Amino acid sequence: MPKAELLEVFTNPYPGRAYEIHMDCNEFTSICPLGGIESDARELTLLEGGAPDFGVIRITYMPAESCIELKSLKLYLWSFRNDGIFYERAVNRILDDLAAAIKPRWLRVVGDFNVRGGIKSVITADFGTR
Amino acid sequence: MPKAELLEVFTNPYPGRAYEIHMDCNEFTSICPLGGIESDARELTLLEGGAPDFGVIRITYMPAESCIELKSLKLYLWSFRNDGIFYERAVNRILDDLAAAIKPRWLRVVGDFNVRGGIKSVITADFGTR
Amino acid sequence: MPKAELLEVFTNPYPGRAYEIHMDCNEFTSICPLGGIESDARELTLLEGGAPDFGVIRITYMPAESCIELKSLKLYLWSFRNDGIFYERAVNRILDDLAAAIKPRWLRVVGDFNVRGGIKSVITADFGTR
Amino acid sequence: MPKAELLEVFTNPYPGRAYEIHMDCNEFTSICPLGGIESDARELTLLEGGAPDFGVIRITYMPAESCIELKSLKLYLWSFRNDGIFYERAVNRILDDLAAAIKPRWLRVVGDFNVRGGIKSVITADFGTR
Amino acid sequence: MPKAELLEVFTNPYPGRAYEIHMDCNEFTSICPLGGIESDARELTLLEGGAPDFGVIRITYMPAESCIELKSLKLYLWSFRNDGIFYERAVNRILDDLAAAIKPRWLRVVGDFNVRGGIKSVITADFGTR
Amino acid sequence: MPKAELLEVFTNPYPGRAYEIHMDCNEFTSICPLGGIESDARELTLLEGGAPDFGVIRITYMPAESCIELKSLKLYLWSFRNDGIFYERAVNRILDDLAAAIKPRWLRVVGDFNVRGGIKSVITADFGTR
Amino acid sequence: MPKAELLEVFTNPYPGRAYEIHMDCNEFTSICPLGGIESDARELTLLEGGAPDFGVIRITYMPAESCIELKSLKLYLWSFRNDGIFYERAVNRILDDLAAAIKPRWLRVVGDFNVRGGIKSVITADFGTR
Amino acid sequence: MPKAELLEVFTNPYPGRAYEIHMDCNEFTSICPLGGIESDARELTLLEGGAPDFGVIRITYMPAESCIELKSLKLYLWSFRNDGIFYERAVNRILDDLAAAIKPRWLRVVGDFNVRGGIKSVITADFGTR
Amino acid sequence: MPKAELLEVFTNPYPGRAYEIHMDCNEFTSICPLGGIESDARELTLLEGGAPDFGVIRITYMPAESCIELKSLKLYLWSFRNDGIFYERAVNRILDDLAAAIKPRWLRVVGDFNVRGGIKSVITADFGTR
Amino acid sequence: MPKAELLEVFTNPYPGRAYEIHMDCNEFTSICPLGGIESDARELTLLEGGAPDFGVIRITYMPAESCIELKSLKLYLWSFRNDGIFYERAVNRILDDLAAAIKPRWLRVVGDFNVRGGIKSVITADFGTR
Repeated sequence: MPKAELLEVFTNPYPGRAYEIHMDCNEFTSICPLGGIESDARELTLLEGGAPDFGVIRITYMPAESCIELKSLKLYLWSFRNDGIFYERAVNRILDDLAAAIKPRWLRVVGDFNVRGGIKSVITADFGTR
Repeated sequence: MPKAELLEVFTNPYPGRAYEIHMDCNEFTSICPLGGIESDARELTLLEGGAPDFGVIRITYMPAESCIELKSLKLYLWSFRNDGIFYERAVNRILDDLAAAIKPRWLRVVGDFNVRGGIKSVITADFGTR
Repeated sequence: MPKAELLEVFTNPYPGRAYEIHMDCNEFTSICPLGGIESDARELTLLEGGAPDFGVIRITYMPAESCIELKSLKLYLWSFRNDGIFYERAVNRILDDLAAAIKPRWLRVVGDFNVRGGIKSVITADFGTR
Repeated sequence: MPKAELLEVFTNPYPGRAYEIHMDCNEFTSICPLGGIESDARELTLLEGGAPDFGVIRITYMPAESCIELKSLKLYLWSFRNDGIFYERAVNRILDDLAAAIKPRWLRVVGDFNVRGGIKSVITADFGTR
Repeated sequence: MPKAELLEVFTNPYPGRAYEIHMDCNEFTSICPLGGIESDARELTLLEGGAPDFGVIRITYMPAESCIELKSLKLYLWSFRNDGIFYERAVNRILDDLAAAIKPRWLRVVGDFNVRGGIKSVITADFGTR
Repeated sequence: MPKAELLEVFTNPYPGRAYEIHMDCNEFTSICPLGGIESDARELTLLEGGAPDFGVIRITYMPAESCIELKSLKLYLWSFRNDGIFYERAVNRILDDLAAAIKPRWLRVVGDFNVRGGIKSVITADFGTR
Repeated sequence: MPKAELLEVFTNPYPGRAYEIHMDCNEFTSICPLGGIESDARELTLLEGGAPDFGVIRITYMPAESCIELKSLKLYLWSFRNDGIFYERAVNRILDDLAAAIKPRWLRVVGDFNVRGGIKSVITADFGTR
Repeated sequence: MPKAELLEVFTNPYPGRAYEIHMDCNEFTSICPLGGIESDARELTLLEGGAPDFGVIRITYMPAESCIELKSLKLYLWSFRNDGIFYERAVNRILDDLAAAIKPRWLRVVGDFNVRGGIKSVITADFGTR
Repeated sequence: MPKAELLEVFTNPYPGRAYEIHMDCNEFTSICPLGGIESDARELTLLEGGAPDFGVIRITYMPAESCIELKSLKLYLWSFRNDGIFYERAVNRILDDLAAAIKPRWLRVVGDFNVRGGIKSVITADFGTR
Repeated sequence: MPKAELLEVFTNPYPGRAYEIHMDCNEFTSICPLGGIESDARELTLLEGGAPDFGVIRITYMPAESCIELKSLKLYLWSFRNDGIFYERAVNRILDDLAAAIKPRWLRVVGDFNVRGGIKSVITADFGTR
């Protein structure tokens, strides 16, 4: 289970300025429930759920009172490693967890996932408007 | 014949949020009817219709109630493999089939085809407005 | 002389939809009249007019009733091979010839020419508005 | 079934010189028998055999009396389109068919196949020594 | 401590024209206070503060009366070399120091920092509006 | 624990020919025991062992009697996902397991790992000589 | 001294159409007065003024009655070779000289200069509005 | 007909030293006799012979008494523009003509031709040994 | 002063096998004594010695009894941060320190330094033979 | 006239080790005597000799007693700026001047010049053997 409680924030040092923070998290991995587009029975047994997914999570936000602490974000993303979750759920879940933690003026989460079955998927979800 | 009945959807887990899903399907292939820009009689006989075409199909949509199931999309695109179809028809046909299956808020299909006779073709068609 | 009569069209299979067709024609070549930026007398004699020019012609249009037939476009562009024509004239001439043939909702022609004398030239002309 | 009888040769115009001919055939496709690394039952039924494979076939040879005719090579490679064949067999089969047709001083065939299940495969086989 | 007093300006030679100056400063380095995302105790001791950070500082501005003198900008950025400062503070500090020195019509500072713990960070802050 | 028993082979269809098979396995991941170059106590607790490592495993071999079955290789590499293992051990372990399974004429394994602490590592080990 | 009198124009063959001409002039060089960011006394003596600067001049315009003749533009840019001039002055001077010569509907000049002291500079100035 | 008499040489200024000269001639074009891999009857009529071919000619040699004069090489390569010639003949013909003109210690000619029918061809021929 | 005492080793887990370890250390920085190619008096005062240098240190070795511990290598390279040292001395010093610490079968150190005054430098030194 | 007397050396700090130093000098420029492949009379008058040439000079050597001082190398290469010299002479002249100044174990000079008339030239000359 992704662990939202791992997310920590620090006080935005320039709260009066509408500036933007972007992060590319290059080593996201989770498990595709039900095996996904490329799996069969042998795979389902091995990892107790399905085939591994890999991707990049891109986060952009305009902080209000708080900024996300980088190491806590890394640990939070690690907590998806052995959980079964679909792409659409993962991106929207990260959006919700981050929005709750940093209460930003605006936030975008993009999940840019590796090719599976010859298909590359990119999911983009926003909280608030830029 | 492309088989629209292969397309399957699943319920959008976040129907209240206007988010976007993009897919690059890198291994699309079909047969050019009448041989196309580079063919002659020998080719027409061999593949019973014409020369093979190759390209990337890029799909972007904003889901309403449903999302496309990835594996069914892969199989649907495979069903063009031995059918004769022009670029313009292929892209608009995929747009119509996907729009009927997922009933999205908005949908774009781009066919980005390999060079033929020194000419690269890219066709872009939309359903609804972003 | 560029031969506009080589251009052939076919009936747009989806005339009710405002979709877009883009083509990159990578192997355009013509002769620069008067030799151009890099020529001298020896060159003018050799090719009876001047030095060869090379470039890419990029065409984008939104079809109304007709679409351009690809092979006829290839032959039309070949017909510039041994004609002397300046960049500005070539791009505007192709725009006029294509507009007359396909009567599109909108059309753009870009001539992206190779470096001459350390200078790369790109000419862009539109017919109608997007 | 790959059709070796499609291969045609022409007389090497410079038989006395040990020169080299290299070709990259970018649009090779075949069917993976038994579905391969990413398939399941639905896929096996659809294409009557398995999932499509894609790749580049790279051919290098030093001609003796004959050179391969390019268009016949294109048609020969098209004849794999709907046949089920493993990577290792495809590359060695092409090597054998080409060696029989052109009787070269030396010949190499490389099959550079697209990623499947996160794994890219490249198979290299030689006839004679360079 | 970053030394804003190192910044020098010269009179804008074209003050009546609204033109833009962009600079990429490729060799920015500072020290992450408290060690940052990748550090431990050994590291804190070695550099008296924490692990080194590296990045590119991108500056764009529209000059009013003054332009920044390039060599003074280089020396100013060098003055961060052995100071402990977080990304957010560094970018906003550079924005404030430059805005005070050149009093531009508009100014943007982007800090594009190297990957740490698998995460790349890019911070963007503006003074005035373009 | 890496599971060598997952590796399956099939009979080399061309045992008399000295040809080469190369595979790039792009989505290798394991756990660094003791946390590795970028870890601290919080990380050790989260994944019960240490920080995740990511990399590409490149395998090249000349088959004798057997070839590695691709899907079994994929599953074997997945079995490192939650095991703690150093780079040097992982590469040499994969070399030993593959050599035992396929008994090749020659085999090379390269582990090309992602940057950690600003350092990229590549480990290369051979079985037999080319 | 830059020699504006070298610039020659020819009559725009399509004066009624609002089209655009773009040129990248890749081999611009001048001398930095006072030596610039990387110089010292030895350098000032050698080239009688300072260190050489290198860059690309990018020009985009919408012609009215006249177009710039390419060879004359090349010679005009060569005339900066041994003159001492700062980046800001060079770009604005080229803008003024070109605007006077071609009296365009709109004109942009971008000076994209090589790295000096670890800093890359790009200056953009416009005449009229697009 | 390619015109070998256009080739001019100048005296090698360093005849005692075994040094190497390499040239990439990026804008080679000729006509494919009989139309080639992508042609049909319409094309044969248009250019009186067949479809145009494009490619890069790469020349490397170690001069003895003479070096090739660059402008004469350019004109010689232009003389292939409207002649029908196969790839293999073109490369070997250029090799013979250059060897006769410059009598080098060693010479290599590579013809690197554009994709036709999905196949890219590269022909390499040597005169003497390096 | 570079601190060779920071280097730590661990026992090679496969001492009987002649395998190779390569590391790219991307964030090396030191101070150029006497200011170097781009400095003047102001710079010498600021950093008490000269201008900062940046580069990549590439290390390749074949371990005997010991392997270098990655984190200790990172700290060792950090110890050059505020020391004045020329490129040639830095690379040879790192070679000597690593050879003393790991007593490898073979070792290569490459210093790949950023452009200074328009010149990029790469220094390569070996200990033993491969 | 190129000024060999500008070259300065310093004592090799590791004379007992056979190591290698490589430098890419990216901003070399000279004047082509007689105008060269792209010139005409107007150009000859403007720069009193001919058209400007641009390129990269790549130097690799194994030092014996001396190393080249980087700033003196930069100034030496600047001294070609307004001199008329052919490519072949420039490269061999730099080789002779450097060999005389540093008396290396081995030295290679490569002149990698920009495209002229569609032809790119690369000249390679060695002093001694590696």
